[in-house]
Amino acid sequence: MKKLVIAYSGGLDTSYCAVSLSKEYEVHAVSVNTGGFTNEEIQHIESNAYKMGVTTYKNIDAVATFYQKVVKYLVFGNVLKNNTYPLSVSAERIVQAIEIIEYAKSIDAEYIAHGSTGAGNDQVRFDMIFQTLAPGIKIITPIRDQKLSRQEEIEYLKSNGIDMSWEKAQYSVNKGLWGTSVGGAETLTSEKPLPSEAYPSQLEKEGEEKVTLTFEKGELVALNGNANAPEVNIEKLNDLASAYAIGRDIHVGDTIVGIKGRVGFEAAAALITVKAHHLLEKHTLTKWQLQHKEYLSSFYGMHLHEGQYLDPVMRDMEAFLQSSQEKVSGDVVVSLKPYHFSLDGIKSEHDLMSAKFGSYGEENRAWTADDAKGFIKIIGNQNKIYQQVNS
Amino acid sequence: MKKLVIAYSGGLDTSYCAVSLSKEYEVHAVSVNTGGFTNEEIQHIESNAYKMGVTTYKNIDAVATFYQKVVKYLVFGNVLKNNTYPLSVSAERIVQAIEIIEYAKSIDAEYIAHGSTGAGNDQVRFDMIFQTLAPGIKIITPIRDQKLSRQEEIEYLKSNGIDMSWEKAQYSVNKGLWGTSVGGAETLTSEKPLPSEAYPSQLEKEGEEKVTLTFEKGELVALNGNANAPEVNIEKLNDLASAYAIGRDIHVGDTIVGIKGRVGFEAAAALITVKAHHLLEKHTLTKWQLQHKEYLSSFYGMHLHEGQYLDPVMRDMEAFLQSSQEKVSGDVVVSLKPYHFSLDGIKSEHDLMSAKFGSYGEENRAWTADDAKGFIKIIGNQNKIYQQVNS
Amino acid sequence: MKKLVIAYSGGLDTSYCAVSLSKEYEVHAVSVNTGGFTNEEIQHIESNAYKMGVTTYKNIDAVATFYQKVVKYLVFGNVLKNNTYPLSVSAERIVQAIEIIEYAKSIDAEYIAHGSTGAGNDQVRFDMIFQTLAPGIKIITPIRDQKLSRQEEIEYLKSNGIDMSWEKAQYSVNKGLWGTSVGGAETLTSEKPLPSEAYPSQLEKEGEEKVTLTFEKGELVALNGNANAPEVNIEKLNDLASAYAIGRDIHVGDTIVGIKGRVGFEAAAALITVKAHHLLEKHTLTKWQLQHKEYLSSFYGMHLHEGQYLDPVMRDMEAFLQSSQEKVSGDVVVSLKPYHFSLDGIKSEHDLMSAKFGSYGEENRAWTADDAKGFIKIIGNQNKIYQQVNS
Amino acid sequence: MKKLVIAYSGGLDTSYCAVSLSKEYEVHAVSVNTGGFTNEEIQHIESNAYKMGVTTYKNIDAVATFYQKVVKYLVFGNVLKNNTYPLSVSAERIVQAIEIIEYAKSIDAEYIAHGSTGAGNDQVRFDMIFQTLAPGIKIITPIRDQKLSRQEEIEYLKSNGIDMSWEKAQYSVNKGLWGTSVGGAETLTSEKPLPSEAYPSQLEKEGEEKVTLTFEKGELVALNGNANAPEVNIEKLNDLASAYAIGRDIHVGDTIVGIKGRVGFEAAAALITVKAHHLLEKHTLTKWQLQHKEYLSSFYGMHLHEGQYLDPVMRDMEAFLQSSQEKVSGDVVVSLKPYHFSLDGIKSEHDLMSAKFGSYGEENRAWTADDAKGFIKIIGNQNKIYQQVNS
Repeated sequence: MKKLVIAYSGGLDTSYCAVSLSKEYEVHAVSVNTGGFTNEEIQHIESNAYKMGVTTYKNIDAVATFYQKVVKYLVFGNVLKNNTYPLSVSAERIVQAIEIIEYAKSIDAEYIAHGSTGAGNDQVRFDMIFQTLAPGIKIITPIRDQKLSRQEEIEYLKSNGIDMSWEKAQYSVNKGLWGTSVGGAETLTSEKPLPSEAYPSQLEKEGEEKVTLTFEKGELVALNGNANAPEVNIEKLNDLASAYAIGRDIHVGDTIVGIKGRVGFEAAAALITVKAHHLLEKHTLTKWQLQHKEYLSSFYGMHLHEGQYLDPVMRDMEAFLQSSQEKVSGDVVVSLKPYHFSLDGIKSEHDLMSAKFGSYGEENRAWTADDAKGFIKIIGNQNKIYQQVNS
Repeated sequence: MKKLVIAYSGGLDTSYCAVSLSKEYEVHAVSVNTGGFTNEEIQHIESNAYKMGVTTYKNIDAVATFYQKVVKYLVFGNVLKNNTYPLSVSAERIVQAIEIIEYAKSIDAEYIAHGSTGAGNDQVRFDMIFQTLAPGIKIITPIRDQKLSRQEEIEYLKSNGIDMSWEKAQYSVNKGLWGTSVGGAETLTSEKPLPSEAYPSQLEKEGEEKVTLTFEKGELVALNGNANAPEVNIEKLNDLASAYAIGRDIHVGDTIVGIKGRVGFEAAAALITVKAHHLLEKHTLTKWQLQHKEYLSSFYGMHLHEGQYLDPVMRDMEAFLQSSQEKVSGDVVVSLKPYHFSLDGIKSEHDLMSAKFGSYGEENRAWTADDAKGFIKIIGNQNKIYQQVNS
Repeated sequence: MKKLVIAYSGGLDTSYCAVSLSKEYEVHAVSVNTGGFTNEEIQHIESNAYKMGVTTYKNIDAVATFYQKVVKYLVFGNVLKNNTYPLSVSAERIVQAIEIIEYAKSIDAEYIAHGSTGAGNDQVRFDMIFQTLAPGIKIITPIRDQKLSRQEEIEYLKSNGIDMSWEKAQYSVNKGLWGTSVGGAETLTSEKPLPSEAYPSQLEKEGEEKVTLTFEKGELVALNGNANAPEVNIEKLNDLASAYAIGRDIHVGDTIVGIKGRVGFEAAAALITVKAHHLLEKHTLTKWQLQHKEYLSSFYGMHLHEGQYLDPVMRDMEAFLQSSQEKVSGDVVVSLKPYHFSLDGIKSEHDLMSAKFGSYGEENRAWTADDAKGFIKIIGNQNKIYQQVNS
Repeated sequence: MKKLVIAYSGGLDTSYCAVSLSKEYEVHAVSVNTGGFTNEEIQHIESNAYKMGVTTYKNIDAVATFYQKVVKYLVFGNVLKNNTYPLSVSAERIVQAIEIIEYAKSIDAEYIAHGSTGAGNDQVRFDMIFQTLAPGIKIITPIRDQKLSRQEEIEYLKSNGIDMSWEKAQYSVNKGLWGTSVGGAETLTSEKPLPSEAYPSQLEKEGEEKVTLTFEKGELVALNGNANAPEVNIEKLNDLASAYAIGRDIHVGDTIVGIKGRVGFEAAAALITVKAHHLLEKHTLTKWQLQHKEYLSSFYGMHLHEGQYLDPVMRDMEAFLQSSQEKVSGDVVVSLKPYHFSLDGIKSEHDLMSAKFGSYGEENRAWTADDAKGFIKIIGNQNKIYQQVNS
């Protein structure tokens, strides 16, 4: 039988695919952990996979890869899509797709399957990366092609001896290192927020708690003084902040297929890290670094969201972003509070708010009143000329 | 005596200017209300002005002008400088400068005075607008030129029979329609937040309160169903939200003179209006409208901050922004809570998240699985070719 | 029979469509003249159309519409795709598609046909505009669907009594108001230029000839002092300049379907108008107008090229561009020479290179040496602080 | 006596400075060759310098440095200010300023002098770089401060025993690796072009000559197959093309001091290299690389022109540009003709106009008619929804 690799999550859709494809192919199931699964969950997925008749199952731990390939640059760029969403899911899919196709190539698979529908973003991300990195491997998408109802899928599985409980959760939840998305019910229309219970974390602590984020060249290298890999710090920060139910919001954006989408998310660590990092940049970067980063980061987010991660322009932007982080080192203190957080301030040896040059608005400074008058006279030249010529 | 107009606020600096300039000029004091003064305060300023020996005093009510000339476009552009600050003070100064110089021209003044120091942004905004709109009127700036200490100014006033209490407030506060800035002590360095008491509003209400903002072509035309001029709605919204102590933050940014500045602010109405308006735009504008608005708005904010309001490019950007608001009409519901707020959702007849086309991620949609496959195949062409050619 | 409108050019492909569709539909042939056809050619197309069996034929004269809807903004924006190509064909297709679909709606057609293949840009422009403006009208594309060879088409026509000479020209030529594209042979690969003979105009004049272009608010309102509609001036300018064989170049760009395309063009009037207009802008616009126009114009060209003319962001950009032209009035003198041209200079009452303020580099100016020193000291502040803090 | 370094060119202004400053300081004259001087000219400058009484004279050969620090990135970015000017002089001044201040630091000078006036751009570039890199070295600018007439300077020199002929050239000419600027007479107003004789090169050859430029990762590594350092290839290319009087134009732009400036230039090698490089990029870069490079390069040019070379954002942009050149390798054939040139085509193993994927517009391609229809249907979704919702 021909070898097929399937991106397997253990849900109804990919279970249906695994069972039906196993009749025709030698099926190798793969899941990629970008921060969403516990070891327990992975073991559960594995044992289910074999029940579905797959030949092998493999979980790829891609948390560090996810951080290095994508999350790092989302922090450098302070990327929040439409000023709100840390691109949690979009970013994960990219890395999952790359890991899966590389695995498929490594075992000489001729086919690759995923369980996305024809309605959304994920099919684009998967297909594009598969086709680009392995033009010779054929893509199989039973869910997209057959458009079965949940009930039909359940019946099919039953008729193949798989009798599990597939009750549909009220909300579709996707968890990863960079945040958890929550969709369903209210998010299908424009008017209502998600109820508090729909979010994964609930308020467990009252009062206020300070946490210190230490950045080195833009990377979160320590939390409250404890050094660790950035992806570990992100996870720990998320645990700390989730106790305050921080990081909930709703993203409204343009899907790759041109329609608007609305999705809730909870991303405490992502939001705190981005905002703290941005504050540190405001102290350590020049005005033009901040300005041009904004342009590039916004497009970096757009291209990533739209599955264009392999476009070489992404590497060029990453080179810019990496270079811009040279001096983005220091501590940021954040106050965690119920449902929200605020930034206390920063401490950095690269802080341009240097007392040596005189504080803003204070008189002891590096220039005189006459210097200021000369400056204003000349900086205003063009507007003055324009007004004189045109009135 | 030669006629001189002075931008008069009633503080120590402009009082010193008024007294000393009155010895040499016929001084006409002007204050411009951009939302910061009550009638009572204006009467107080007026009576003080005459004590300083000015010939006339005039308050110009510029709240509606301020909204029409600047605030409107800051809402259209969702402008938050460095992603944080609604440009409260920067925006006010522009309108104040224009109103004062127009007044000076109307009474044929030969001189114009302001009380800014040589250290900050305001001198640039005042001088540039004065020089551009009235190149023939000479600018007098005693505070910038003489660099007197507070004590010297107080002594001078005393010696001229003005014996008032000029105790220096711990924080320097500037209040206007679009927010209140709070500077001093902690904001002079990078590490500490302002204490809660430094902010003008304190928590008065607990729990949660919903408020409905109605926009028409991007303008806030009603609050909880009550129609009113946008500037009035902004004031009312601010009153509502201030009871929850919403809208506090600290802005770190680049001053026009090239050094970093840090300033606290409270701007409940500005932040809520901008965020609600932006959400409505996410539902009603196309992807490219959102993208290009972002570029222009960011620069609109930069130029405004830097006093370049009279550059004709600002009119060009306003034309773009105005055009983009054609369909930005509808209701946004906001939840006010202690110290923060969240957006519930929107309702608009221009909502592009239209059910007619199939909801995001759902199967009932305007295209087939084959359409999607064709789309992805072609949208991925360039990356595929790039990979094939280069590997 | 059901009503069908066909975009008819009289070439082999659309002739084949007309004949074969006439068997099933009541075919109404339409051609849209955007500057490419003489009256004689239109009569020729008309008589041929009837030979193909169409029920009615109509030519729509859209030269002025083409100018008003698109060309005007390409001039305002100095749009040259990839710094080279005036978007001649891309721009035409948009207006042709709009005119044809409006005509189809006006006669209650249920079907609309065009002769584009599935390989290129035009199908995207036609389909997108048809689907957007008339979602109820079904699109028929025999050439794209049937993929017949030229020989098969010719045979089919013969077997239907149409025996005309359909010799394939060596180069495929598309002529319109804004330029003529020339594709084939050399342009299919990357290495060779088109031979001189492939271009529509050949050198007829030697020496040098001056021509004066008069712009009013960015529009070409007169040529050598003779006022006329801008589209007429463009045509006349093209006649003048073509005698010098001016305006040849090769465009290499990205097609909408993601592959690179290479095409020759001759566009004397477009290139001269854009370059002359740009020079006038350099004298009359501020630095920031020039800078931000560049960003918007580049994207305006990209979106137009990709068939996104109906995206409302295009209207927003047009509002910006229109506003920016307020003072772009004056004369530009151009020297025409064999195969190239140069710009002599401009004369405008809005010229900001005003002698009143002192010429550049000359000493009689509006500021002193001390003003300049103060200006430089302050404008250099940030770099100085950065260096001091970081070294 | 205190040590002073002077930027010495041998002209009247710097000769005056050298003589007058030598009375008070130990003067060390430095000239920096960025491609403008022959060895003979340098010897002439040297012998003159000693006549002026300087203690030492040194010429720094900075041609390779100039290429590595600046020119390289101007090629990578295809930078032509206002779409015309290769920034010849702006770019040179930066490198000259850096070289001179480094020299001053190396010999422990306390003072540094330059001969710029207070009217133009150069004073800003010199002062800013001096102040940033050596805040402790005091800047002396006799010409800016004393505003002497040419006659007064000549008299002063005579009275100090220097009796040379200082006849003012009709045009002020500045020659360097990246082009020669020509100012005076006609360029002081807006209307007239420079006469042909004002340009340094005159037509010496007729007919047409092909030249092959070989790029490797964006750098000009060979000319007609002869490998050499890029700066040498640029010089050789300039010699070849100057025989055809190629590269003349007039730049109109905004000076740093806010007024408009107009200057002629001849820059054959710069224009040809940039245009050839850009063509190669159109074949080898993706659409988004081309688009985002355009944004960054335009600002790179602006900041460089305005003397902001030391802003760290320039290093970030350079990192982007360097990354983007990874595949920009190949040959470009250029045709040199009297007064103009054209690009024949390119040959590159990274050419994305790959025949493997089907040529543009041809039928043998990687997708079907149905794929194309699916693509268009979905790519058009947003406009269709917008139209449906809003009409």
